[in-house]
Amino acid sequence: MAMKVGFVGLGIMGRPMALNLQKAGHRLWVHGRRSSTMQPLVDAGASACASPAEVAKNADVVFVMVSDTPDVEQVILAEKGVVHGARPGTIVVDMSTISPAATRRMAGELHSKKVEMLDAPVSGGEVGAVNGTLSIMVGGKKDVFDKVLPLFQAMGKNIVHVGENGAGQVAKACNQIVVAVTIEAVSEALTFARKNGVDAAKVRAALMGGFAGSKILEVHGQRMLDNDFKPGFKVKLHQKDLRIVMEDAGKLGLALPGAALVAQHLNALMGAGDGELDSSAIVKAVERLSALAR
Amino acid sequence: MAMKVGFVGLGIMGRPMALNLQKAGHRLWVHGRRSSTMQPLVDAGASACASPAEVAKNADVVFVMVSDTPDVEQVILAEKGVVHGARPGTIVVDMSTISPAATRRMAGELHSKKVEMLDAPVSGGEVGAVNGTLSIMVGGKKDVFDKVLPLFQAMGKNIVHVGENGAGQVAKACNQIVVAVTIEAVSEALTFARKNGVDAAKVRAALMGGFAGSKILEVHGQRMLDNDFKPGFKVKLHQKDLRIVMEDAGKLGLALPGAALVAQHLNALMGAGDGELDSSAIVKAVERLSALAR
Repeated sequence: MAMKVGFVGLGIMGRPMALNLQKAGHRLWVHGRRSSTMQPLVDAGASACASPAEVAKNADVVFVMVSDTPDVEQVILAEKGVVHGARPGTIVVDMSTISPAATRRMAGELHSKKVEMLDAPVSGGEVGAVNGTLSIMVGGKKDVFDKVLPLFQAMGKNIVHVGENGAGQVAKACNQIVVAVTIEAVSEALTFARKNGVDAAKVRAALMGGFAGSKILEVHGQRMLDNDFKPGFKVKLHQKDLRIVMEDAGKLGLALPGAALVAQHLNALMGAGDGELDSSAIVKAVERLSALAR
Repeated sequence: MAMKVGFVGLGIMGRPMALNLQKAGHRLWVHGRRSSTMQPLVDAGASACASPAEVAKNADVVFVMVSDTPDVEQVILAEKGVVHGARPGTIVVDMSTISPAATRRMAGELHSKKVEMLDAPVSGGEVGAVNGTLSIMVGGKKDVFDKVLPLFQAMGKNIVHVGENGAGQVAKACNQIVVAVTIEAVSEALTFARKNGVDAAKVRAALMGGFAGSKILEVHGQRMLDNDFKPGFKVKLHQKDLRIVMEDAGKLGLALPGAALVAQHLNALMGAGDGELDSSAIVKAVERLSALAR
């Protein structure tokens, strides 16, 4: 059933996601900070809006896909933000990766105005956004999730309702912890092989399929062997995501020494000018510790 | 083609491995420190020997499967050791997980007596040993590897010739680094979810199949959720393996901060009396840091 859908944030992820909603037959109202980003959507039949508030005036479900916590707060709560166009019953779905605590605060604020909110961060990158194969981790009320599910299905495959508001962001944070620390694991192992004079490609082959097997060993391990750090998922974004994790852990009084260690390697990569590389470049930070060149 | 095969070390791993060689039709000479461990082999037709030297006098290929570097040195080089029964052309295959450097030293010493050596540590645990589905990582000369391959195929599935003497041990060390640090990754992520009040089982489900997906998330993640730390692979053995890694890294002048961190968690588990648990109990060490009870 066609729905009235809004989409704010038409970057490298948001634009193909919005296009997939349009392809699924929904009526779209869109807003991007740079008006040029709206053109492909308008060409496909969407209406360009001057502000997030204008998007919300027209749509029943408003998706937000921007970079960081302050961007989401701006889009939803600031002057001309979504909240100023929304009506009771409007559903705001934030698909950005941001702070779980800030998410819970915003959901509370919207709820006091009878506006519903879901947090629904994704993994799968640009390829997943284009192909409609994103993993989507959702927090919020189950009945609201059920209403939005057909729209999620136009954008992703593995769609999990994790729990209440913020739970989607917590799951995404967990995803980023596991990915970062597993990249560290593979980086240290392949560097150990190399320093021992052993063929790291053969080691990777020997480890695949056993308990050491992972998507990271398969994909990022190959990138390390090929010395090819074209993103993929950028160091600067992984750094941002681990900053969110460590801030949240700090507030909770939770020690995450592995995640903290990898966050330092991401900091070091930023300082070395490697922020635009794929985060499998963590292997470079590991190698630099022992002055191994690549 | 049936071969004359020796097997020294008939513990939880060695016994089923030797039985699989026997089932494949080979003639076996065996030795275990406790004579009772030889009985199931003798019942199946093997000859019990009083020493590793006696095994080597009878067999053309002698397998060794014991616990640690000093045990292997004892079995191969000490009085009544394999070297004292071996002839030029005898092949010694050490399947224990020990130091790569010590392996290279022993291979050199045996080579000076025209005795060949392969290092061939395994992963896959007791289940893999019983079912003949071990992963086997082999170091040594390619032509020697080719001679032993039919025997390896009676014990394992994923059999990789990684490189020269010691390369099998290096690959196994890499395996243990990846497994340990990936357990840390999953432990921190599930603890983050729990401390945030989010259902860790749903988080695991949301992460499976994406870039965070791994054998460890699947198997060890489930053990953490079930609070079931029946081994599997024991903390005390994983501690030993990371000790070997860190000793080797120290000698090489290689920093492995992630592996070092997890080695500390294994140390802490040993001190807490958890050495007999599966090494997925690393999650307990992570939780204890923040005084979270399980």
